[in-house]
Amino acid sequence: MKNLNKNEISKILENALEEGRKVIPNGHVATYIPQLGTVDPNLLGITMITKDGEMFTAGDWDTRFTIQSVSKTISLAVALELCGREAVFSTVGMEPSGEAFNSLVELDLNSNKPYNPMINSGAIAVESLIIPKASFSDMLLFSKRFCNDPGITLDEVTYNSEMAHSARNRAIAYLLQSKDIIKTDVDDSMVLYTRMCSLSVTSKSLASLALLLAVGGVSPATGERLLSTETCSIVKTIMLTCGMYDGSGEFAVNVGIPTKSGVGGGLLSVVDKELGIGIYGPALDAKGNSIAGKVILKYLADELDLHLFS
Amino acid sequence: MKNLNKNEISKILENALEEGRKVIPNGHVATYIPQLGTVDPNLLGITMITKDGEMFTAGDWDTRFTIQSVSKTISLAVALELCGREAVFSTVGMEPSGEAFNSLVELDLNSNKPYNPMINSGAIAVESLIIPKASFSDMLLFSKRFCNDPGITLDEVTYNSEMAHSARNRAIAYLLQSKDIIKTDVDDSMVLYTRMCSLSVTSKSLASLALLLAVGGVSPATGERLLSTETCSIVKTIMLTCGMYDGSGEFAVNVGIPTKSGVGGGLLSVVDKELGIGIYGPALDAKGNSIAGKVILKYLADELDLHLFS
Amino acid sequence: MKNLNKNEISKILENALEEGRKVIPNGHVATYIPQLGTVDPNLLGITMITKDGEMFTAGDWDTRFTIQSVSKTISLAVALELCGREAVFSTVGMEPSGEAFNSLVELDLNSNKPYNPMINSGAIAVESLIIPKASFSDMLLFSKRFCNDPGITLDEVTYNSEMAHSARNRAIAYLLQSKDIIKTDVDDSMVLYTRMCSLSVTSKSLASLALLLAVGGVSPATGERLLSTETCSIVKTIMLTCGMYDGSGEFAVNVGIPTKSGVGGGLLSVVDKELGIGIYGPALDAKGNSIAGKVILKYLADELDLHLFS
Amino acid sequence: MKNLNKNEISKILENALEEGRKVIPNGHVATYIPQLGTVDPNLLGITMITKDGEMFTAGDWDTRFTIQSVSKTISLAVALELCGREAVFSTVGMEPSGEAFNSLVELDLNSNKPYNPMINSGAIAVESLIIPKASFSDMLLFSKRFCNDPGITLDEVTYNSEMAHSARNRAIAYLLQSKDIIKTDVDDSMVLYTRMCSLSVTSKSLASLALLLAVGGVSPATGERLLSTETCSIVKTIMLTCGMYDGSGEFAVNVGIPTKSGVGGGLLSVVDKELGIGIYGPALDAKGNSIAGKVILKYLADELDLHLFS
Repeated sequence: MKNLNKNEISKILENALEEGRKVIPNGHVATYIPQLGTVDPNLLGITMITKDGEMFTAGDWDTRFTIQSVSKTISLAVALELCGREAVFSTVGMEPSGEAFNSLVELDLNSNKPYNPMINSGAIAVESLIIPKASFSDMLLFSKRFCNDPGITLDEVTYNSEMAHSARNRAIAYLLQSKDIIKTDVDDSMVLYTRMCSLSVTSKSLASLALLLAVGGVSPATGERLLSTETCSIVKTIMLTCGMYDGSGEFAVNVGIPTKSGVGGGLLSVVDKELGIGIYGPALDAKGNSIAGKVILKYLADELDLHLFS
Repeated sequence: MKNLNKNEISKILENALEEGRKVIPNGHVATYIPQLGTVDPNLLGITMITKDGEMFTAGDWDTRFTIQSVSKTISLAVALELCGREAVFSTVGMEPSGEAFNSLVELDLNSNKPYNPMINSGAIAVESLIIPKASFSDMLLFSKRFCNDPGITLDEVTYNSEMAHSARNRAIAYLLQSKDIIKTDVDDSMVLYTRMCSLSVTSKSLASLALLLAVGGVSPATGERLLSTETCSIVKTIMLTCGMYDGSGEFAVNVGIPTKSGVGGGLLSVVDKELGIGIYGPALDAKGNSIAGKVILKYLADELDLHLFS
Repeated sequence: MKNLNKNEISKILENALEEGRKVIPNGHVATYIPQLGTVDPNLLGITMITKDGEMFTAGDWDTRFTIQSVSKTISLAVALELCGREAVFSTVGMEPSGEAFNSLVELDLNSNKPYNPMINSGAIAVESLIIPKASFSDMLLFSKRFCNDPGITLDEVTYNSEMAHSARNRAIAYLLQSKDIIKTDVDDSMVLYTRMCSLSVTSKSLASLALLLAVGGVSPATGERLLSTETCSIVKTIMLTCGMYDGSGEFAVNVGIPTKSGVGGGLLSVVDKELGIGIYGPALDAKGNSIAGKVILKYLADELDLHLFS
Repeated sequence: MKNLNKNEISKILENALEEGRKVIPNGHVATYIPQLGTVDPNLLGITMITKDGEMFTAGDWDTRFTIQSVSKTISLAVALELCGREAVFSTVGMEPSGEAFNSLVELDLNSNKPYNPMINSGAIAVESLIIPKASFSDMLLFSKRFCNDPGITLDEVTYNSEMAHSARNRAIAYLLQSKDIIKTDVDDSMVLYTRMCSLSVTSKSLASLALLLAVGGVSPATGERLLSTETCSIVKTIMLTCGMYDGSGEFAVNVGIPTKSGVGGGLLSVVDKELGIGIYGPALDAKGNSIAGKVILKYLADELDLHLFS
């Protein structure tokens, strides 16, 4: 990362937001879950926190939105902590899939496990591992701690909307059960998975989570170790290779910041050992990633030298 | 069909059974549904009824077993009668799939409809069309009439066993719902589908059903028209091209008798305008077709000149 | 087949042609081979020959065109005669593929053999079996005899045009070689395959070939046995299940006449034990079948009761 | 990277080699190219060069072997330099494929371009871009410079062996041509691709190439800029996400060192801004990666803190 003063960084953040705003008209809010379709596509916010505790914000940085697939990183981290690396990766793989987030094809052809924990099938399998070890209220507590945000709640309206439009995820869950990958009750896994997707966060919550991963698991806020270094390393690597669905490879080349996106418009971005970035921009590109968010991250990567291999 | 007297035909049937018996050790009863796994693999029976009402039987011809996928022909026929050809084929295709009976891959890639009504996805979609028009007790009544067998009942033990091991079919049903192919309740479709699979029949029931199709829909027993000629034509054609799962093409070449198999060991075989054949042989080949039944049909096709293009 | 006099049949044929003509504007001549793209899409002709030798014709029945994929039936028949059933079907399957004619996907996933001899991969494999037994001039001679047409020649212009646009077929051929399915030289197979596709025929040639298959292999013209009954039975069955590419199942249900199509606009249709039909109509539907030809066959099937299960 | 003295590093390298040696019996030399099958599986060597020019070696570090797929990194780098980023990535993607290195399936389904330049289809497409800009002798010269090894030659015996067993790659190349992805002569692309695979290198050559990438393109040996920083960044990122075939994701998690493998037994590993590692170990695992080499890299990653996110 480039050595700049606070004003310079603030200015770059503002510029990044402006760059992002330009592409919003090319995106669309998610509509396959009706509740997500009601959101204003022009919302755009960012929070960036450095390892030294400096926080930079811009735009709608404190607007709440549902975390959606970004929660897959929390669930993976919890599963690694509670169940261990071997149990997790005997249930779910670590390979990018080259297919869309909700594909059943590869799961059916590749019979023993989902490709990775960042696609729906993998994440549902991860929830089924967590169920015997932690309840949703435990998971909510973990989420609040990891995100340093006691204000996280379950967005009941979105949750109900998602449960009413969950046919594809149920198909995936039953396919997992038919292959003996899910051993717990399918409904329990579906409920936990959908609840985790319906957590209400801000760009600041995600920036705090990203920073926790960047510094290797010790909370910068409290000094408490929340995650092992190993767990952080695994989550960051999988975010890099699989975090942007079937656009992960291109994003790694062009931006080079491990990032996980959600169809709610959230982006969780980790600049290792340096800083955490959270973005909210609900207008999505065709692959389900925040369209303005990607532009912002590309801009920041270029201006601040944040690419992994810059 | 060759012109033979009754004794000659009876003798050929006995010989066919002996030929079939030889290959039983190469087959296995279905085990993915526990209840099916308890059956004696050495059971073997056949019934053949001519258009003139002559009936030939051999072996365990009157043993009851669950109809399983053979019921797909009944459901297709009912759907065609109640909903019409256009409604049915705007929901399900008519193409052989080249894949196993319970594949999700082609359904997911080929997004608008299941390949045909003889694979699970297609049959579940057909049940969803029937639901607004007919209850299970209606379907049971239709089945008794088509099979000329008032003794058909729901095998509750098998039904419960199947419902307890239905994850893959549920995955298929939810995938159909997610694609808006099933518009009714998924559970309702699953229940009707599984109940139809759990009907208890004999080889004679199937021979009667086959004869009904062979003669174009007027019951030889009662003189009542039960199905239109068009429905019979469609069902027979689809049995020929799709009735033996991914072994349909080879069976059509080698045997040339439109046939639908079920994993309960049943075979429904139609020699058009001539006769109906029902077989029961629960030891299955790798594709899920009665291993002895296939040998018997090949033998009969050769000895009696039953191949479509003989 | 309905019992009608010659005038009635002639009239039906004329009407069928008129019905076919109406849909020509919805079709397109093949353009992936430039030479085929130069053809007048409004050409339309039909020849029908009964087992008693009566011939009915209409439209451009004696216009020459390239046989294209219809030649797959000739090559299959020759391979069966020269190499035997076992050799052929240990190299190529008999299953409908549910995919387009030039798919590599199923071949690559399903590693041991092409799905059937009516798709390009299967046909190229069949040519490779023929090569050690027969030269192209032998094949030309067979074609003339089967089609009762000494005027068949190699259309050099089309042949050269196809060879210059053969990348996909070459890809298929090398994939076959890499799987050890083709054991002869790839170029030799490509040349023979493409030459067979470039034979110049008329609708009458195809009607004669269809009649030969319908009557079980003894030439109605000369009384000479040209093909065994078994070969004819196999070819007819595979035409029925696989002859219309991924539209074969629907065509079997709706029309019920074993038919093989070619992108040159030819259709070869066999009404078993009754008659042979040849059609020429170069405007194709999206699946590569003559769009007017399909309408004509549906009309004839309905008016003359030609459906297999009518 | 841990701060250690030269003796400590040398010792760790020796230990790593011993760890690697233990798993050699679980691997197999490649046999699909006969010439590769003649190699002694027990060969094992490593070279590591730091940015300060210190070189550490162990085992058969100066044995020559064919570079095989490791050359894909050289070709990608050259194509980026000569044709530009846009031309390259409008021809080939950047996504991990989740499939084996020589798959045709994804290419055929995903019609517009190969998934990435590290699989055969992508690499052959890259060669076709290079052809109008550079001859093989140019490429040989580039390779010598990048690897700081004037002794690199074309291994004619391996080249001829590969060309004689190139059916699958030819199938891929013709499929690329049929999709208009390759616009040059297929044979030219095949020849250049196969020649690049047949370059004869040592572990030291690969370590030098890795170091060049690690330091961003300026030759540590000569001070000359051989590649742009951007080219190096792209190549390193794609090595990380796609370098180990369908085991890339797992390797990134477990080892975290961008690496490209070849079936000749070579591994090219870049510890960004720190050091270059080259390994030779011809016994391969099931995915085609050096089985001992992977163990060595895991050992070094752990002992020297080389994981990207350690």
